[in-house]
Amino acid sequence: MQKPEHHIFICTSSRPNGQQKGFCHSKEGVEVMMRFMEEIEERELGGEIFINNTGCFGICEKGPIVVVYPDNVWYGSVTPDDVEEIMDEHIEGGNVVERLLI
Amino acid sequence: MQKPEHHIFICTSSRPNGQQKGFCHSKEGVEVMMRFMEEIEERELGGEIFINNTGCFGICEKGPIVVVYPDNVWYGSVTPDDVEEIMDEHIEGGNVVERLLI
Repeated sequence: MQKPEHHIFICTSSRPNGQQKGFCHSKEGVEVMMRFMEEIEERELGGEIFINNTGCFGICEKGPIVVVYPDNVWYGSVTPDDVEEIMDEHIEGGNVVERLLI
Repeated sequence: MQKPEHHIFICTSSRPNGQQKGFCHSKEGVEVMMRFMEEIEERELGGEIFINNTGCFGICEKGPIVVVYPDNVWYGSVTPDDVEEIMDEHIEGGNVVERLLI
């Protein structure tokens, strides 16, 4: 199969039992994911950039969490307004967004 | 923060709206995740090996899907009985489990 160039994981506090609560969920984790999906569609990067919502990463105090693999870059306190910068600087530009690193 | 040596993502078909259905969910994706959690706890690898449930990877016909990063190794049709082999061979042994690759 075609593997992604970048694979973006966003905590939306999705629990395996379907329960939907938690810090990242309360802090717009779902909105952050939706914004990434829009940006990827607009930039026509769907074949190279994959995106997934996840359950808890266990570092809720730093949430909402966004992890980019295989880069192994961890961002915290990500807001919907940060998504465009992550896309421009990191995903398309190749430079991590230092101010959001955890 | 301490980054994981291996980060294991398992599709449990967790949708961002809390809805809980889909191929990986129906094919024991949650049970696969639980088995990984038990193995990691028993082997006392919690500090080095992270684990997360996810939403859909979009390749449902190959599910249940397990992805290991930063290795960028993709496994498909994973059953709960495959988990011990993935832990022994790949996570602790350093060799991918060829028969499960997609």
